[in-house]
Amino acid sequence: MVTLKPDLETRLAEDHPQVDSLRDGREPEHLQAIRLWLRLLTCTNLITTEIRTRLRESFQTTLPRFDLLAQLERHPQGLKMGELSRRMMVTTGNITGITDQLEAEGLVRRAVDPRDRRSFTVKLTPQGRKVFAEMARVHEGWVIEFFSGLGAAEKDSLFTLLGRLKAHLNGKEARP
Amino acid sequence: MVTLKPDLETRLAEDHPQVDSLRDGREPEHLQAIRLWLRLLTCTNLITTEIRTRLRESFQTTLPRFDLLAQLERHPQGLKMGELSRRMMVTTGNITGITDQLEAEGLVRRAVDPRDRRSFTVKLTPQGRKVFAEMARVHEGWVIEFFSGLGAAEKDSLFTLLGRLKAHLNGKEARP
Repeated sequence: MVTLKPDLETRLAEDHPQVDSLRDGREPEHLQAIRLWLRLLTCTNLITTEIRTRLRESFQTTLPRFDLLAQLERHPQGLKMGELSRRMMVTTGNITGITDQLEAEGLVRRAVDPRDRRSFTVKLTPQGRKVFAEMARVHEGWVIEFFSGLGAAEKDSLFTLLGRLKAHLNGKEARP
Repeated sequence: MVTLKPDLETRLAEDHPQVDSLRDGREPEHLQAIRLWLRLLTCTNLITTEIRTRLRESFQTTLPRFDLLAQLERHPQGLKMGELSRRMMVTTGNITGITDQLEAEGLVRRAVDPRDRRSFTVKLTPQGRKVFAEMARVHEGWVIEFFSGLGAAEKDSLFTLLGRLKAHLNGKEARP
C-alpha cells in the first residue's frame, strides 16, 4: 500500500552476514539483539525517508523544518534556541539557519524573553500555526497509512514492547 | 542498567499534546498510529545517541565512520562510492570526506575497478578489518545490553511485529 523507492528495500536490507546465518533456525541470543536493532533502525529509516520525500513533494519543505514547527506547536509559550535544539526529533542540524528561513517566511518569530532580556524565545506566528496545522493533518494520514499493515491489537503489542524497551533505555526498572 | 544522559528522557519524551489526552484510556485509532510512531522514533534516537556517545568515549570515533567500516566489512569485494552511500544506515553525511580520513589512517583503500577503469571501489585494509573487528565486538555487547530489558520471547515478538511493519512499508502484502 505504501510505495517506497524500489531500491530502498535492498538498500536497507538487514544484510549483516551474521544475520544470514540465522535463517537456518539457530538463533544465539547475542545475534537476536543485533538483528532486532537492525530491523528497528530499518523501520525508522524507511518511515523517515518516506516522510522526507512526501514533505518535499506535497509541501516543498524538509523534515527538519516540519520538526521545528511541530516542536513550536507543542509549546505555545515559545522555546529558547537551546530548548528547541534539544527537542528536535530528527536532526541536530542548523537550527539557527532554519529559524532564520522560517522567520523570513513569516511562519515563526523571535521575541525577547521578558524574564531575561539577553535571551529570546521562538514562537509560531498565526500564519505559521495555520500552515503547520495543514501539514500536520496530512502527515497524520501518512503515519496511519505506514502502520495500517498492523491490526489494532498488534499496534498495542508493539507500543507496549517499545515502551518496555524505552523504560530500560531510560534506566528505569520496567519489571515490577 | 543503561545509563543515558539525564536530560535525554525529557528531551525525547512523547510530549505530543494529543498523546497526553490518551492517558485517560480513550484511544482513537488515528492517535494510536501517531503515538506508536513517536515511540518508535524515540527508541531509535535513544539507542543511536547512546551508541554515538560510547563510540566517542571508547574509540574516539563517530557513528558515520563506524557505519562506513561496517558496510565495507559486509562487502569484502569492495563497494563503489555510490553503493557505499546508499548502504549507510545512519547518515547520508560526507562519505567522500569520511573515506579520505579513513584512507589517511590506513583503515580503507581505494582500488581501481578492473571492469571499469573510470571507477573505483573502497575496501577495508587488513588493519581496517582488525580495528573494525574489535569495535564490532564491543558494539555487539552494547546492543545486547540495550535490549536486555526484554525477555527472549518479547524480543521475538518485537522482531516479528517490526517484520510485519517493514513488509508493509516495502509494499509487500504481509497477510496471507
